Amino acid sequence: MAVYTEISDDDLTAFVADYGIGEVLSCKGIAEGVENSNFLLITEQNSFILTLYEKRVDPKDLPFFLGLTQHLSERGVPCPTPVHSKNGEVLRELSGRPAALVTFLNGMWPKRIQNHHCAGLGQAMAHLHVQGADFELSRPNALSVSSWRPLLDACEGRGEEIQPGITAELSAELDVLEANWPTDLPAGVIHADLFPDNVFFRGENLSGLIDFYFACNDQYAFDLAICLNAWCFERHGDFNATKARKMLRAYRKVRALSDAEMQALPLLARGAAMRFLLTRMYDWLNTPDNAFVTPKDPLEYLKKLRFHQAVSGPGAYGLDYNL
Amino acid sequence: MAVYTEISDDDLTAFVADYGIGEVLSCKGIAEGVENSNFLLITEQNSFILTLYEKRVDPKDLPFFLGLTQHLSERGVPCPTPVHSKNGEVLRELSGRPAALVTFLNGMWPKRIQNHHCAGLGQAMAHLHVQGADFELSRPNALSVSSWRPLLDACEGRGEEIQPGITAELSAELDVLEANWPTDLPAGVIHADLFPDNVFFRGENLSGLIDFYFACNDQYAFDLAICLNAWCFERHGDFNATKARKMLRAYRKVRALSDAEMQALPLLARGAAMRFLLTRMYDWLNTPDNAFVTPKDPLEYLKKLRFHQAVSGPGAYGLDYNL
Repeated sequence: MAVYTEISDDDLTAFVADYGIGEVLSCKGIAEGVENSNFLLITEQNSFILTLYEKRVDPKDLPFFLGLTQHLSERGVPCPTPVHSKNGEVLRELSGRPAALVTFLNGMWPKRIQNHHCAGLGQAMAHLHVQGADFELSRPNALSVSSWRPLLDACEGRGEEIQPGITAELSAELDVLEANWPTDLPAGVIHADLFPDNVFFRGENLSGLIDFYFACNDQYAFDLAICLNAWCFERHGDFNATKARKMLRAYRKVRALSDAEMQALPLLARGAAMRFLLTRMYDWLNTPDNAFVTPKDPLEYLKKLRFHQAVSGPGAYGLDYNL
Repeated sequence: MAVYTEISDDDLTAFVADYGIGEVLSCKGIAEGVENSNFLLITEQNSFILTLYEKRVDPKDLPFFLGLTQHLSERGVPCPTPVHSKNGEVLRELSGRPAALVTFLNGMWPKRIQNHHCAGLGQAMAHLHVQGADFELSRPNALSVSSWRPLLDACEGRGEEIQPGITAELSAELDVLEANWPTDLPAGVIHADLFPDNVFFRGENLSGLIDFYFACNDQYAFDLAICLNAWCFERHGDFNATKARKMLRAYRKVRALSDAEMQALPLLARGAAMRFLLTRMYDWLNTPDNAFVTPKDPLEYLKKLRFHQAVSGPGAYGLDYNL
């Protein structure tokens, strides 16, 4: 369920008229996504995605998100480009919500991850990092290491309902992460949420990256660590080092990884697992029973965290130093 | 939430290849609708709706539904036309579900009903009745008068949780409906679920009728009675006789109403209110708290039922005999 707000006929007509994109032929709510209300809007001229920003997105961040995708699109990173109204605005209001119209991207996200998907992802992520480097706005990562202990505390020990002993286990892990978290790795704009449902492919070719609503400034290698978790584990929980190697090799063909970045990967991967484990645990404990959205399983990320804890070095991710 | 089944990449590619409609560019789940999983499928050639039939639809009925929309489309009634595979099939299988691909209709359903919408609806409904008359398949109305008492019984008196006294009130009303229900009015194929979200408009012009999954053979005037309830009450509960008159006038310009049909309208409208009141009450009492779908308010239809009980004759619906 990804439509929280209904748009009246008159409001939609008036909104679209301000763009000069022809008359509306169709406007259908899209079932995917959980943060905002998304509509596939078809007009006489083209197809678009119309997004109404719901309460989980801070309106103050919207100029960063919309400006970033505009910036990246202009530099050839395939992502939804904000459409400007006749008055030049990209962030407007519809049905009482901040709203934006963006270009429609062909392609579909892969339901079954294959090796070539990981290669395409690695290449596109590196382009994003390189091309985003001169984007003028910045936004700190609200979900980096300093946010994790407050998140664990906010669960008030109720993680035990999910897995006995988890509070102590995560607290000990946080001690390690907080003491060793790197701060001097190359940094810039990262996507921070490049899960498979945010990456579109057409056949074997990556056709676009979407959903930049966690994008922020952070160390580039943290984006890689997030993707190691999101793309390189099989459904049954095993880590697939071939997929990791494909992703990292394709990335390094576009942007070199320093020794420090490679050495940091195991710890970053633990941190990335912690970040998603904690937000999933918090959501799991705080989603009302009658919610539209089924919360995601936090324990999937506990298994991933434990995998990375047992890793002895970056070689576990298929990294070869002599690329 | 109207996507219950996820389609794998390979299954979708193989399914679409059997149609000769080009490569898939996009396939997005649609948030509207509650019975089936619906996807907006865009290929190199065109846009389509892909439907996976979930358990609320009896697969035995699918040839009726798909054959009917094909029949009506060929006769100029705008509705989704089933697309034939290269083998000539319209009903196929995908992700373990019966599945069909139908043409995409431009237009949107009206969120705020205006008088002209009711006129467009009346005209299109009459065309549906006239053009459906020679459709060769038939399907009894499983939700006509004989089904209502079993539905009330299936609520096991728990309607009292919604409105004290409702069980006795509806039981008494069923006595009246069962004793007086007409059986000799002109009959044929009716849509039986022509609510505003199943009727698309482009500007002021009706562009299509969708969702034929309650279509059946029944008395034509019962379709009118359903629409009197669905289109002619304002949100605050008042009956708008002008809208009813617009709908009935537009209908009668295409298909004449007999005196018997007009005289029967108040009772048919009570029956139509009873039918939706009972299914809504049953769903209300039997929807789990954590369901994706919010059940619709049954009491809206109790108010409508009481309005029709107080009606002295068809003149209340704006019917003028000297059209």
